[in-house]
Amino acid sequence: MDPKPQDHQSPSSTPSQLRQVLVLRPPPVFTVHEQDFSSKFHILKAYDSPLPTHDFLQTHAQSVKAVLCSGIGPITADVIRDLPALELVVTASTGVNHIDMAECRRRGIAVTNTGDVFSDDVADAAVGLLIDVMRRITSGDRFVRGGRWATSGEYTLGSKLACKRVGIVGLGNIGSRVATRLKAMGCLVSYTSRQEKHTTPFTFYPNILQLAFNSDALVICCALTNETRHIINNKVMMALGKKGIIVNIARGAIINEVELVKCLVEGEIGGAGLDVFENEPNVPKELFELDNVVLLPHRTAFTQESFYNAAQILIGNLEAFFTNKPLLTLVPNEF
Amino acid sequence: MDPKPQDHQSPSSTPSQLRQVLVLRPPPVFTVHEQDFSSKFHILKAYDSPLPTHDFLQTHAQSVKAVLCSGIGPITADVIRDLPALELVVTASTGVNHIDMAECRRRGIAVTNTGDVFSDDVADAAVGLLIDVMRRITSGDRFVRGGRWATSGEYTLGSKLACKRVGIVGLGNIGSRVATRLKAMGCLVSYTSRQEKHTTPFTFYPNILQLAFNSDALVICCALTNETRHIINNKVMMALGKKGIIVNIARGAIINEVELVKCLVEGEIGGAGLDVFENEPNVPKELFELDNVVLLPHRTAFTQESFYNAAQILIGNLEAFFTNKPLLTLVPNEF
Repeated sequence: MDPKPQDHQSPSSTPSQLRQVLVLRPPPVFTVHEQDFSSKFHILKAYDSPLPTHDFLQTHAQSVKAVLCSGIGPITADVIRDLPALELVVTASTGVNHIDMAECRRRGIAVTNTGDVFSDDVADAAVGLLIDVMRRITSGDRFVRGGRWATSGEYTLGSKLACKRVGIVGLGNIGSRVATRLKAMGCLVSYTSRQEKHTTPFTFYPNILQLAFNSDALVICCALTNETRHIINNKVMMALGKKGIIVNIARGAIINEVELVKCLVEGEIGGAGLDVFENEPNVPKELFELDNVVLLPHRTAFTQESFYNAAQILIGNLEAFFTNKPLLTLVPNEF
Repeated sequence: MDPKPQDHQSPSSTPSQLRQVLVLRPPPVFTVHEQDFSSKFHILKAYDSPLPTHDFLQTHAQSVKAVLCSGIGPITADVIRDLPALELVVTASTGVNHIDMAECRRRGIAVTNTGDVFSDDVADAAVGLLIDVMRRITSGDRFVRGGRWATSGEYTLGSKLACKRVGIVGLGNIGSRVATRLKAMGCLVSYTSRQEKHTTPFTFYPNILQLAFNSDALVICCALTNETRHIINNKVMMALGKKGIIVNIARGAIINEVELVKCLVEGEIGGAGLDVFENEPNVPKELFELDNVVLLPHRTAFTQESFYNAAQILIGNLEAFFTNKPLLTLVPNEF
């Protein structure tokens, strides 16, 4: 380790004392690889303290320069105000919608994410959800485990994937991986995005309504922003139609969940594969009764391999920060 | 229709009377599209008759030239003996292991299957099962529907697909489609087959044991023959290893099911996605307790689109037979 004093640690203290990292609520990646973090940094665990969060933050307010977070523990303007020395927010996620980016910008606080370390896994799970809903895999498993195969002549036919028109909402790191996979299955892929991507072979539609109208299934892969909140509403679902499938592996609030549940219950769309919800971990109970939906507990990034890789990126960003080196995965935060 | 007398129908009877098609047990494709069959052929429904099958066959023995079947109603040597006029067996399946091919060969009875009409759908479902087991989709759905997300901190990590070594057992119509799909997901595909296919980019292993030893997952895509019966045994599963996944969308008896259940229960392999079983519709009850298996009721070919296409092929073969035209999808049946 570099012995000369650094901006972020004074020479009078031991490095581990001053390499403080605040954790409000432990991200799963942190929990699984806690040993790796604890051996390199002094972890301040707000969630283990008997103090209320605000009081805990007050106690450490002057010293905390870095915080580690994820979607389960938002970094609000209030939290940021409680931490006047804060310089870095490291999130164990690709999305940053749980961080008050405007407040970070105003205060000059850097934000890093996990880059595209989860992209392949999320894309695989998106494709898995689409196959599952169209081919009734989870439904079939319930049928067998319920002992109905031997006693019931029932068989509901699924839908073929080949030649189906699948619309990708947001053709970024994840969306483009979903597109590649679906192309190999013979699907006809199109997309909508903030702007047309001229380097892809896929058909572009300038807005979500046109995409839905020309699709048999939609796969939501975009970030949650003010522009995308509730972008999938009743009108879009009506355009998608009664056989249409929606897969959401992005963020729950991109879909108007009340309208989604209504459309599913009333058969206005054909089915859904949902990894994310508006008010996690709460899932609308009406969905539990439906055989044409597959429900995941926000787990499409949860593999041993991506967790290991994500931990290395989180640690790498914290190491870089405490040794004044360039951050690995800085999130652009400008107007 | 050609007015001149044909080999398979005499001019003194109406065509529909003599275009008799025997059905012992109705294949699902037939049930779904029965109207199309009934409008073109005179269907003799053994399953609707109060007579025992043998007596029913005796009644129609002299006139039945064509039989329609599938895996749920085997065409045994006994059945064939009961039908001295039989010239054609049309099966609503790709596999023909439910037909006594030796007896058909001896009698000069032609056998047609459904060609590769189901191949894309079966390949999609195979990939869906692999993703499902590795990424714990059905398991996750149970977790959410069981109301455990809000109350349990539990999360078992899945396995990443990218860079996993997947071994295809049988690189035919279905196996090669599975390989293409998995390649798009970043899997490292290899295979074993009766002989090496020099036109594919995938690594060949000359036997199942070498393939298993060099694979993280096996996808069974071969036909059931005397050579492949129980080819997946305890030794192969030990070579695959404790994290290894098996997907079977071919025929149940390709796996030694007793040994598979034992390996799964004892944790000697990592999980399984099974569409087929040795004694369908009976599924070993021990599997119902396992969270790392996905169980389907032999449904990987069950889509509206492939059922429609299969019906057209079945009808096309029967039409060709009754008008003395070449059969569409004759199964080679020589030593």
